[in-house]
This record gives sequence, structure tokens and C-alpha cells, in this order.
Amino acid sequence: MTLDISALVAGVVGKDLAALGRAVTLVESTRPQDEVLAAELLEALEPRTGAALRVGVTGVPGAGKSTLLDALGMHALGLGRTVAVLAVDPTSARGGGSILGDKTRMARLSRDPRAFIRPSPSGGELGGVAHATREAIRVVEAAGFDTVLVETVGVGQSETTVASMVDTFVWMVIPNAGDELQGIKRGIAELADVVVVNKADGDRLQAAARAAVEVESALRYLSPATEGWTTPVLTVSALEGRGMDTLLGAMVAHRAHLAATGALAERRTAQELAATWRVVETSLVARARARSAADVAIRSIEADVRAGRLGARVAASRILAALKDA
Amino acid sequence: MTLDISALVAGVVGKDLAALGRAVTLVESTRPQDEVLAAELLEALEPRTGAALRVGVTGVPGAGKSTLLDALGMHALGLGRTVAVLAVDPTSARGGGSILGDKTRMARLSRDPRAFIRPSPSGGELGGVAHATREAIRVVEAAGFDTVLVETVGVGQSETTVASMVDTFVWMVIPNAGDELQGIKRGIAELADVVVVNKADGDRLQAAARAAVEVESALRYLSPATEGWTTPVLTVSALEGRGMDTLLGAMVAHRAHLAATGALAERRTAQELAATWRVVETSLVARARARSAADVAIRSIEADVRAGRLGARVAASRILAALKDA
Repeated sequence: MTLDISALVAGVVGKDLAALGRAVTLVESTRPQDEVLAAELLEALEPRTGAALRVGVTGVPGAGKSTLLDALGMHALGLGRTVAVLAVDPTSARGGGSILGDKTRMARLSRDPRAFIRPSPSGGELGGVAHATREAIRVVEAAGFDTVLVETVGVGQSETTVASMVDTFVWMVIPNAGDELQGIKRGIAELADVVVVNKADGDRLQAAARAAVEVESALRYLSPATEGWTTPVLTVSALEGRGMDTLLGAMVAHRAHLAATGALAERRTAQELAATWRVVETSLVARARARSAADVAIRSIEADVRAGRLGARVAASRILAALKDA
Repeated sequence: MTLDISALVAGVVGKDLAALGRAVTLVESTRPQDEVLAAELLEALEPRTGAALRVGVTGVPGAGKSTLLDALGMHALGLGRTVAVLAVDPTSARGGGSILGDKTRMARLSRDPRAFIRPSPSGGELGGVAHATREAIRVVEAAGFDTVLVETVGVGQSETTVASMVDTFVWMVIPNAGDELQGIKRGIAELADVVVVNKADGDRLQAAARAAVEVESALRYLSPATEGWTTPVLTVSALEGRGMDTLLGAMVAHRAHLAATGALAERRTAQELAATWRVVETSLVARARARSAADVAIRSIEADVRAGRLGARVAASRILAALKDA
């Protein structure tokens, strides 16, 4: 089956949800034959990208991300905004199905025709999954969505990865779990443009307030994620829908701060150039590593390094020589 | 002039200081014709490396690193140890001369024939400077020095770089300067196996105690740099020579902890393999970037990314194609 790219572009721009789904599938594809088509699609959409509020949202499993995104998304729709939710699932690289962006978990948003929800692409390395989502952001922007929420679970490098593709990074914390300490230790606090302490409801109100104080005092030790911006720590209840106005307000204010200081264009250009060279370097290194893995001589050089028989300089020059010969 | 490598090896192993100096100069050299000789030298020395206590020491300018290294080195010599001091100066890449490892600043150690002091190699990228020092560690180890202190100034990536070549990483803090907060913010605290609050003397005693408390409470938020090891925070006076026994004791204890848990061999093997692939990947990418810089087509692709006319995928595939054609 051949894809008609100009029809697909028209469908995306016309906000046809079926076309949108096909377009995102295309940029997620790792089949070599889709490469040229995806490139063609993205090039055609490029002039229409860039206008959305690009927000990343992270939190540990059980932080209530789906509930928050549902409540936040509905609040944004109520204000006349249009909402797309994308997911980066670092665990989908290993298994099959995605645990994130599950439509059924965003009960109201998933039934609303004004919203577009897309689970994480599965398979491949985190880098590949992330790259697909970077491009999916552009596809939904071209379709006219003005609020793009990129969700990720707080595992491994996923937060850093998502932070490198959005304008505003939101870190969700839950009280009573030592959760805030873990996030601070793992360096997530210093990526955060906005911190949200969720589950500030019922008998957890006090615990939420304590967690907020803990995060605020830790932030004193960190450089702000955005120059000149003081990262707010908000307590909300996604379950009760409380605090969504303040949260959306903080996102919009952060974006306005970036735009006013010129940091928005700077950050995006830097992200795009970095992503470009990441793809180039990943391709070059992957090619070299693939050849190396199959290369008996290189395997034996690595074994010599492991056994302490060979230092890095000699090992590297032998690997480079072996790569040239191959 | 040709270098007789076997004579140089004999000189290094015989701890001839002039030969040692020539050997370090050789591994620091960036001249292509020295590459084979340096590789030959390192290969010959490799079986004699690995025995030393490899310690990195960092602190901001004015922290008193030279005074501390002088006092610590003299204390170690007094216990029958042999001491080599190497330096990684991230600023030497830009300018000419080195500001670190200045012999005259280690008044006693520099006059003691049992010690070897070597300033930072100058010129080149931090990566290259660091690579030379990684190899200089092995040269002085082969010469029989059992205590290798690698000094760096707390700027940019230099601490991470030094931490990746030593067993034990010591972070120096000075009181009354907001210094500890800066180091915590910059992520240095989480690299530290030992923290030393210097200048605990005269009317700065109380300020030093306060800085130690501040660092200790920040460490609560961080994962330990070494699993199963609680990073000690020591207050010392390099000026008065107080605390050198405790400091050396902490270094030896940390090294013993690494050895007992098997982490020492693991850490060093991982460092060496990482360094190997860093050299391979740096060479591959440098080659690609060098060709790219001279390539009018690639410059224009980058300009298109900067102007927002081209996304990362298309840009990357065009750069890769241009590199293949070149």
C-alpha cells in the first residue's frame, strides 16, 4: 500500500483524527521504507509547527498522571484550548504494549472529540521512542492543537529525555511516599519548571503540605531549571479537580516568561540542533557498534580491556583500525 | 629525535624522575607521530599499573587545594607512602600556561625527592587534557607511586571528568562563601566519596562547622556516590596541617570498601571500557564534524534548522548523506 503524502498532509491540517493517527504512526515507524515518506510529511508540516504550549509531565507510577491529565485537559478544553496527550514510555522499548497514555484511564478526555490521545510508540531504544514523540509533537501542532502534554513515567533517563523536547517541564510528586526525596536524589527537581504535589485531598492534605515544604527547601539547593524563573510548588487534587486553574496558569506563565526573555526560541533551536546531531551521531556510532559486535577482532580487544591487559588508548586505536578495515 | 621506548620504560620503572617527565610528556602529546610511541609505552607499562590509591581532589579557586595537597602529601610521605600529584585544568584548553599543579605553590612537596608533581597538560579540549591525565596516572603507577592525587578546579565538567578516572573523589568546601550551596547545586556533592571543609582555623572555626552541617543535610537528599558507603564530611585546616590523618584515613577506608565489595575492579573496568569507547566515538564524531564544518551543504542544513525551516529528522538524514558523499 502506498501512502499519499499530500492527502495525509491535508488530513492533518484539516484536523481529521484518522489522518492524524496515520501520520503519527508514520513518524513512529522504524521500517526503512517509511523513512522517506515520514521525512516528506514532516517537511510539509514544518511551517505549521511551533505554536503550541509544549508541556512535559512526569511522576512515578501511581502518582496519578492519568487522573491529572484528564482533569487538566478538561479544564483546558473548558477554556477553549485544544489538547493533545502524547506519551513516552521508556519501558515500552522492552515489552510489547504501552502502559502509558492508556485512553481508558483518561475517562472524560478520551471521549471528547476536541482531544487527541496517543499512547507511547513501542519497541526500540528509548532514544528512538523519544525521537518519534518529538516528531509527533510537530504533527499535532500542525493539526492545530494548542496544548500538547507529553507524559512520561519517572524511570531511568525518561525525564531528561522528555525535558529535552518540551518548553515547560512539570514534575508530579505524591505525599507520604518518600517520593519527593527520590525525585530530588535522581536530579528530577532541577529539571522542573513547575512542581505539582498531587493527592492533596481527604486525610492526605497535611502530608501534601509537608511534601511541598520538603520540595521547596530542596529547590533552594538547586539552580532554577529556567533562568530568572522561580519554580512554583503547587498542591492540587487531580481526583477532585482542584488546582487545575493554578496549574494551567503556571504553565502559561512559564511559557510567557520564556517568550519574553527570548529563551523560547533559543531553547527550541538548541533542542532541534541537538536532536539533529544526536541522530547523526547515534547513526554513526550505531553503525560502528553494529560492525563491532559482529567483529571478532573488536570483541577480543574489549575482552583485553576487561581483563586489564589493554588500556583505552591502544584499545581505541585498534577498534578504529578494525572499523576502517571492515 | 627518536625516542628509545624500551629505555624510557626502564627509566620509568626505575623511578628516574627525568624519564618519568619525558614519559608523561609523550602521553600528553597530540602530535600524530607520537601516537604509536605513546601506545607502545603504555602497553609496556600496563602490567605494572593499578596498585595506587587514585584520588581526585576538587574545589573552587581559593579553596586552598595546593596548601591541602602540600600538607596531605607531606603527611603521606611521613607514613612511608610515595606521592604523585597530577592536574586537570579545564581552563588550560583555552590559554597557554597552567594555573594548576604549580610546583611553587606546594612548597614542601615540590622540594621533596620522594614526590612527583606535574602540572596540567595545556591546549586541546577538556576531553583530550583529561585523556592525557588518565594515562599519566598509569605512568606514575608503573613508576611505583602508591598515592596519586589528581587535582582539578571546580569549573564546568572538570569534576565529573576527574571522578571518571579515580577510585575516590574528594570535594573541598570552604566556609563563608555560599561555596557549599554552589557545589550542591552543580551536582558535585553527589560525586563526593569524601567531603573536606577546609580553613577550619582561627575565627573561621564556627563557619566551617556550619558549612559541614549544611553539606551533611544536603547529602541526605542525594544517593551515595559509592553504594554502601556513607560519605564523611571532615573539617580540616590545611594551613595548620590539622585533619590530614583523618583525611588520608578516609581515603584509605574508601578504597578498602571498594576493594572489599568488588566495586574497585568493577569501577575501573567500567571506566576503562567507557574511556575506550569515548575515544572511538569522539574520533568518529570529530571526523564527521570536521568534514561537516568544511562542508558548505552541511552548514546550510544547520542554518535551515536554526531558522526553523527544517526538522531534526530531515536535517540528520541530509547530513548523513552529505557525509557519505564526502
